[in-house]
Amino acid sequence: TEGAPTHKYSQGSALGGVNPDLASERQTPSFSVEKLTALLDGGEENTRIRRAVVEAIESDPVFSRENQYFQSQNEKYEAAVRKAVHLQKKMHEMGWTENGPEFKYIYRALSGEVAFLLHTVFMRSISVLGSDKQITKWIPLATQYQLIGSYAQTELGHGTYLQGLETTAVFDIATQEFILNTPKISAMKWWPGDMGRSATHAVVFAQLDIQGKCYGVHPFIVQIRSLWDHSLCPGITAGDIGPKMNFDHIDNGYLMLQNVRVPRENMLSKFCEVQPDGTYVRRGSQQINYFTMTALRVALISHEAVIPLMKACTIAIRYSVVRRQSKLKPGEEEAKILDFQTQQEKLLPHVAAAYAFHFINNYLEDLFNRGYEEIQRENFDMLPELHAFSSGFKAMVTQYCASAVEACLRACGGHGYSLLSGLPSLCTRILASCIYEGENTILFLQTARFLIKCFMAASAGHPVPPSVTYLAAVKPGKCPAKNKFDFLSPDTYTEAYQHAAVRLISSTAAKLQDLIQSGVKKHDAWNECTVQLVQAVKAHCHYITVKNFAETVERLETKGGIQRIMKHLCDLFALHGIFSNAGVFLHDGYISGAQMDMVTASYLDLLAVIRKDAVPLVDAFDFTDKTLNSALGSYDGQVYQRLYEWAQKSPTNTQMNPAYERYLKPLLHKKLSKL
Amino acid sequence: TEGAPTHKYSQGSALGGVNPDLASERQTPSFSVEKLTALLDGGEENTRIRRAVVEAIESDPVFSRENQYFQSQNEKYEAAVRKAVHLQKKMHEMGWTENGPEFKYIYRALSGEVAFLLHTVFMRSISVLGSDKQITKWIPLATQYQLIGSYAQTELGHGTYLQGLETTAVFDIATQEFILNTPKISAMKWWPGDMGRSATHAVVFAQLDIQGKCYGVHPFIVQIRSLWDHSLCPGITAGDIGPKMNFDHIDNGYLMLQNVRVPRENMLSKFCEVQPDGTYVRRGSQQINYFTMTALRVALISHEAVIPLMKACTIAIRYSVVRRQSKLKPGEEEAKILDFQTQQEKLLPHVAAAYAFHFINNYLEDLFNRGYEEIQRENFDMLPELHAFSSGFKAMVTQYCASAVEACLRACGGHGYSLLSGLPSLCTRILASCIYEGENTILFLQTARFLIKCFMAASAGHPVPPSVTYLAAVKPGKCPAKNKFDFLSPDTYTEAYQHAAVRLISSTAAKLQDLIQSGVKKHDAWNECTVQLVQAVKAHCHYITVKNFAETVERLETKGGIQRIMKHLCDLFALHGIFSNAGVFLHDGYISGAQMDMVTASYLDLLAVIRKDAVPLVDAFDFTDKTLNSALGSYDGQVYQRLYEWAQKSPTNTQMNPAYERYLKPLLHKKLSKL
Repeated sequence: TEGAPTHKYSQGSALGGVNPDLASERQTPSFSVEKLTALLDGGEENTRIRRAVVEAIESDPVFSRENQYFQSQNEKYEAAVRKAVHLQKKMHEMGWTENGPEFKYIYRALSGEVAFLLHTVFMRSISVLGSDKQITKWIPLATQYQLIGSYAQTELGHGTYLQGLETTAVFDIATQEFILNTPKISAMKWWPGDMGRSATHAVVFAQLDIQGKCYGVHPFIVQIRSLWDHSLCPGITAGDIGPKMNFDHIDNGYLMLQNVRVPRENMLSKFCEVQPDGTYVRRGSQQINYFTMTALRVALISHEAVIPLMKACTIAIRYSVVRRQSKLKPGEEEAKILDFQTQQEKLLPHVAAAYAFHFINNYLEDLFNRGYEEIQRENFDMLPELHAFSSGFKAMVTQYCASAVEACLRACGGHGYSLLSGLPSLCTRILASCIYEGENTILFLQTARFLIKCFMAASAGHPVPPSVTYLAAVKPGKCPAKNKFDFLSPDTYTEAYQHAAVRLISSTAAKLQDLIQSGVKKHDAWNECTVQLVQAVKAHCHYITVKNFAETVERLETKGGIQRIMKHLCDLFALHGIFSNAGVFLHDGYISGAQMDMVTASYLDLLAVIRKDAVPLVDAFDFTDKTLNSALGSYDGQVYQRLYEWAQKSPTNTQMNPAYERYLKPLLHKKLSKL
Repeated sequence: TEGAPTHKYSQGSALGGVNPDLASERQTPSFSVEKLTALLDGGEENTRIRRAVVEAIESDPVFSRENQYFQSQNEKYEAAVRKAVHLQKKMHEMGWTENGPEFKYIYRALSGEVAFLLHTVFMRSISVLGSDKQITKWIPLATQYQLIGSYAQTELGHGTYLQGLETTAVFDIATQEFILNTPKISAMKWWPGDMGRSATHAVVFAQLDIQGKCYGVHPFIVQIRSLWDHSLCPGITAGDIGPKMNFDHIDNGYLMLQNVRVPRENMLSKFCEVQPDGTYVRRGSQQINYFTMTALRVALISHEAVIPLMKACTIAIRYSVVRRQSKLKPGEEEAKILDFQTQQEKLLPHVAAAYAFHFINNYLEDLFNRGYEEIQRENFDMLPELHAFSSGFKAMVTQYCASAVEACLRACGGHGYSLLSGLPSLCTRILASCIYEGENTILFLQTARFLIKCFMAASAGHPVPPSVTYLAAVKPGKCPAKNKFDFLSPDTYTEAYQHAAVRLISSTAAKLQDLIQSGVKKHDAWNECTVQLVQAVKAHCHYITVKNFAETVERLETKGGIQRIMKHLCDLFALHGIFSNAGVFLHDGYISGAQMDMVTASYLDLLAVIRKDAVPLVDAFDFTDKTLNSALGSYDGQVYQRLYEWAQKSPTNTQMNPAYERYLKPLLHKKLSKL
């Protein structure tokens, strides 16, 4: 019943070909998998380049991820440094450059398990915040790793609120130096990556003090370790912050400074400078710098949220057609678990979400590219909207994807809980994306400020940015759907989402105004509305995502069945959102209880439809077995064999039993060998 | 501003007394913390005993959990075996017995980090399923650890569906032995605890075959390792299944059997026996055995779900009054993060839930004690109801608590993500409780069968068990609340929950009947209703939990402010459930949109009320610092000092940098030591 592995991406293990239960799922896809992959990549040429990069990386043993589930924190760190250093050689050897088309696929091919990401941030901060002279001095050294940099902003007691940073940099006119200090423990730098064990330098953010006057937070280049023997420099205390839920490969560090002196030239001075006599000079606009930070949030959506979700879906869907449990029909063999409605409901909406978020990510990238062009023309009008977009979508997408990856893990039962499934590491890693680069709740509230402002402006008849013009068009009305099929119309559900978003934003804006008018102070009133504001922002982002998915489907070519299957997924994503957030739509009767029953019926119908294409839909994500690194998710579906094979390599099996001689033997050996 | 540590439970580190921000939270609790602790313990005497057990365990260095966040899987396993072996001595030394009042507190005091739990299951299965002769032979040996047992039921390809097990046991009349075999890889035993590296014996479940006829799954005692040198017995392949998301301390194992012979006497034969001539005899009722499995699910609710949630709440609440971030009011210092409404909303409902689940757990324990008495009188009438209770509540409580613990982790931002916070290990461990002892979705559907059956019976006027008589009293009606204060009436919200549960159960029963009447086959119809059935069961369990909380509050003494604060928590738990599942209540207009706004207003008001007592409410859980093992959650709130102190002990700091000599030095050392 079993053939040889048929796919170039299979690990090629001698495990006996493709599992027939998985093979049968691939026999009659309703669409062309290859075409869908090309769509996701943005064209066949990109697919070709991506595959070539993956092939080059995966065929190089230095980049191997074998045994990673058995490694200690120290071993993972060492491997990440090894890969980072080797990558430079590899790029040179392959002719890949930072501006070449291959570059963006390298991080994906390495699954992000590589050191010196903060070194990159170090370099970028110098490029953006440094003077030409500073760039000329530092960038070439950093590029060749002749020094290793980190970016020390966050402190033990201070995260998001930058003004609260406590590290000080006092200018000493006599010596033309800044004297940096960590005045108390909460001011210790804490979390910067690459700083715990690798970095020789760091861009350190500190409160600038000139002759007793504080000028706010500024960046300084500080050497922390010797380039000669890597010992800590005088006045420096630094180390690793210890074990985390994931990111073992990164040496997140701490740093304390005690009267550390750096020359005046080490303050990054593109936007402000301290002159020899202590005069503080500010120049130019920092707005492009805000744009850089904002763009970073968008950049992580794909790598740290959407791709991990795609991987988790691939693993869980493939496993769910190999795993059989309980009988669905009396007398038959045990059923594939994906044939249970509950399992479909646990997984298929997340497959749809992975596509939805892929398309919204494309939309955001386009938007930011346009934004960048405007900003280069010194037009900063789009900045508030871009900031709102990046904050809201970073928060919404990472939050959804983190929950969804965990749902995939749970849906795989006991085997999902084994590290060998690959799901736990996806799960613990994506959780961090909800916290870093802006904690999600704080980001939601950033977007909320924008939305409330725009709503007020729109209500007063003022012009607002294009993404929120819908706020001006508040229509009461009811949903016109008459039967369950009406809910498969994108206009119907997109309008429902729009209505819900407008209602939540307008009602919270009204509450805010009522509170202020009743005498509550502005900041207290804001705080009292924040739970509802977060709800409103989520509804707004959900609406934009659904609308963008529907518009994307509209534009797709009808060939190869792509448009049809994407339409199903768009419907599923939209109806899943209504089904799961029913209260939002029922609240003012826009959707009635009877209509909600229609939504439910259409939603459950769709599960059965999409079920047939479940495996081709995740195959189209086109992950290699080495990328997935999952005993449950491999292309050939040889789940049990692989679990067994991999388990045998575990140190719990390859090392002596550490408890036997000391604890067990004294108890057991008094008896005969056989009872 | 800082005094000496004031509490006997503080770790007594020389970190500088209680953090003043935390100390101030304890100054004016609205209730007596000590009285609340006694209530949770079920009386002051229990509190005294529990504290004595905790003290005895924690003062013994063999049970130390220091450095656990730095340990490898092998080290954790070794520590767990060491503790299990030492525990026997300790119990003897302290005069603790298995039937004594101290016993139930030992596992809690060890935080469950101890080996040989499956050894206990091994013994219990012999006690329940074995003949008197078997009990006499095996139990004394096991009690003294002269052998170590495991319980081998689950297979690589088979979990919940026991009939699907593939391991075979063929009776050989000639030798009076059973011959056990693993016919294929999916039949390999997989997951049994204590089996990977410790066990010498296992109760193995296999399909009994006598002269070619299959008699179904039966338990056999099989020796797997030598008592003399711990080597694997002939025909046995066994080992550890490798790394997991947590439970590193347990050697979950695999087991393959190849013509392994055990004597006829090794089939556990209380309920059925194979006679020497191959005659199969069944005797007695196995119903008490079902009761045992059912009771196990209830037993885990407290230890594996509610207590972990209480710990997570304690850590997150204490940290949230120490951590300050951003200004709530202009000109003031940065605010405690618990003063932000969003942070209150993230945490306080979970504190309320911890109390709600503690009380429902008490209710279930009482119910099961009564059930046990009835069953001993050979009255099995309560069994279906008990099974439904244990399945539904195990699933509902573990699912809620797993999400809530994760919410606590996320609410602590970056520092919550450090293993040193204690939250990641709580989070990854509790996730497993959603899977083991019955995967939650399957359990929900078990309860669904019971509810649908009872609903049909009630509709037809037949008598039903007491917990579901409410299904017979379907009243259409509307919620009578007129303002937000009306929603602080337990009658009002309990009725809303009851209405919602009845509506969901009755509408799903109707859908099921409609499908069957329209010609869909019964099992297909059931499958098509399962997503909604799960919703219905959740609503049922939620209703019972709210009702029980309200009734508990009713009975509390009014002294010491206990009843008042518990009433607030009950209100919060109930309104949080309505706020978060608004669609369920709005669907048929039982609660109108305007009333939902009242719910929201009352819910948000309550957050501000309970905020004041947040720290005393978690202090009442009465965890020692050693139990919490959290740098963020200690009684003295010295968060930053402890993070720094603990991080320095990490192997990433105590061991040489593994990457420096090999990878970094060749790059860096070409330059001067100082740039």
